[in-house]
Amino acid sequence: MDTIDFIVHLTIKYIVMSNDTWLLSLQTETPQEGFELAIKLSRMGVKYTQPDMEVLKKLRTDYANNASNLTAASSVVAMHFQTVSAANNYWKK
Amino acid sequence: MDTIDFIVHLTIKYIVMSNDTWLLSLQTETPQEGFELAIKLSRMGVKYTQPDMEVLKKLRTDYANNASNLTAASSVVAMHFQTVSAANNYWKK
Amino acid sequence: MDTIDFIVHLTIKYIVMSNDTWLLSLQTETPQEGFELAIKLSRMGVKYTQPDMEVLKKLRTDYANNASNLTAASSVVAMHFQTVSAANNYWKK
Amino acid sequence: MDTIDFIVHLTIKYIVMSNDTWLLSLQTETPQEGFELAIKLSRMGVKYTQPDMEVLKKLRTDYANNASNLTAASSVVAMHFQTVSAANNYWKK
Amino acid sequence: MDTIDFIVHLTIKYIVMSNDTWLLSLQTETPQEGFELAIKLSRMGVKYTQPDMEVLKKLRTDYANNASNLTAASSVVAMHFQTVSAANNYWKK
Amino acid sequence: MDTIDFIVHLTIKYIVMSNDTWLLSLQTETPQEGFELAIKLSRMGVKYTQPDMEVLKKLRTDYANNASNLTAASSVVAMHFQTVSAANNYWKK
Repeated sequence: MDTIDFIVHLTIKYIVMSNDTWLLSLQTETPQEGFELAIKLSRMGVKYTQPDMEVLKKLRTDYANNASNLTAASSVVAMHFQTVSAANNYWKK
Repeated sequence: MDTIDFIVHLTIKYIVMSNDTWLLSLQTETPQEGFELAIKLSRMGVKYTQPDMEVLKKLRTDYANNASNLTAASSVVAMHFQTVSAANNYWKK
Repeated sequence: MDTIDFIVHLTIKYIVMSNDTWLLSLQTETPQEGFELAIKLSRMGVKYTQPDMEVLKKLRTDYANNASNLTAASSVVAMHFQTVSAANNYWKK
Repeated sequence: MDTIDFIVHLTIKYIVMSNDTWLLSLQTETPQEGFELAIKLSRMGVKYTQPDMEVLKKLRTDYANNASNLTAASSVVAMHFQTVSAANNYWKK
Repeated sequence: MDTIDFIVHLTIKYIVMSNDTWLLSLQTETPQEGFELAIKLSRMGVKYTQPDMEVLKKLRTDYANNASNLTAASSVVAMHFQTVSAANNYWKK
Repeated sequence: MDTIDFIVHLTIKYIVMSNDTWLLSLQTETPQEGFELAIKLSRMGVKYTQPDMEVLKKLRTDYANNASNLTAASSVVAMHFQTVSAANNYWKK
């Protein structure tokens, strides 16, 4: 029963998500745009886990004023920037 | 004795898991589908450790309302997205 | 309504950010300059999340005097240094 | 004296470990089998540090019911899955 | 007394370390040997920071009985295993 | 005003740092030298954030006697060792 319930839940989520196309490409014009895409990816990773915008805004105040949480957030950005940089061949000319 | 017990335990687990084919390919059509696959992989990593859906649902409420846990969850997504992105050659055209 | 609010917020942020070009290239002359770029990227990851300089300065005092936070900051530098090093083909001669 | 003691300790450990061949290859048939190998590698990383099965079972109950620990466990799986995926060239056809 | 001992030890450290060749190659015969090398690298990372064997043994008891610390230790092994696996071209035949 | 203040701060820091050339190359003769370079990079990541040597020495005592901090330090070494190993093509012969 649990397993069936789980599958249903997933199906609904994916429909909701696919309504909103937010990531068309990993390629960007400049490294800075790539960095900003990495920030967007970090936030979307959080948003998929906690889609309630009211809760997110409240939590945001918490971690944006905490040194340890800010560093953790920065580490997620770093990981995504690795991906985006590789996708753009490091914007080598 | 412990070692034998361990092997038996593992064998049972793998049978249970192989009943359910949930990952056929790392290739996706778009980067966004790749991101959603990364989220699925993150959740499966948790599910293999704690297969009890009732416990998982309860814990989910805990970490989805905690800034630090949400960031940690987002970092796992970032790691899997690195893998999926490489598997898709970063969806380069 | 929440979703619309979110998009507006993002749009404003990106305009603010693009006013300030801070990352033109991942290529550096030497490995040490690459390391210093990695430090800059780590800080920008934090700054995008908490743009208020007054809050940042206050938090900086907190984590710069805490062993665990310093190590976490160093790990973010390590990740960005991976990216920058790859972008420079490890400054191989 | 300490150094000698250390070397002896290491030697004994490696003999014990090499008695049990548990990893023959990183190549798997499917991505899902690769994911399950990643889970096995995560567990072996723990087992080498704490070989006492009784302690491990006790600790397992602890972290399998804690959201933060489950996410941390999932991050280790993600790292190993990166390795296994690369070893299999991402199961590209 | 411990601190003085520590400083003296550090000065000697680089001499001691270079006296003691503990890493000749990243290449191993099998994946399992590669995994065991990853464990050795993880421990050496700790040992360079805390060279006092008495302190290390004491701390080891602490973290080997703590679920969260064990998972963290396993994550370091995972990182080194990525390196060793790449060094061995994933032991592809 | 905040932004200007930030730029000034950065400029000063970079001048201070560039006085001291500490990283000339990522290439080393042996894997062990590469590991020791990784340790140096880890420490420099900390030193750039907290340049006060007195504070650093005090904090060092803290984390060198704490299992969880030692493991975290070891993870940063592991990341840098990935970079250095790749830079040396894994010292393949």
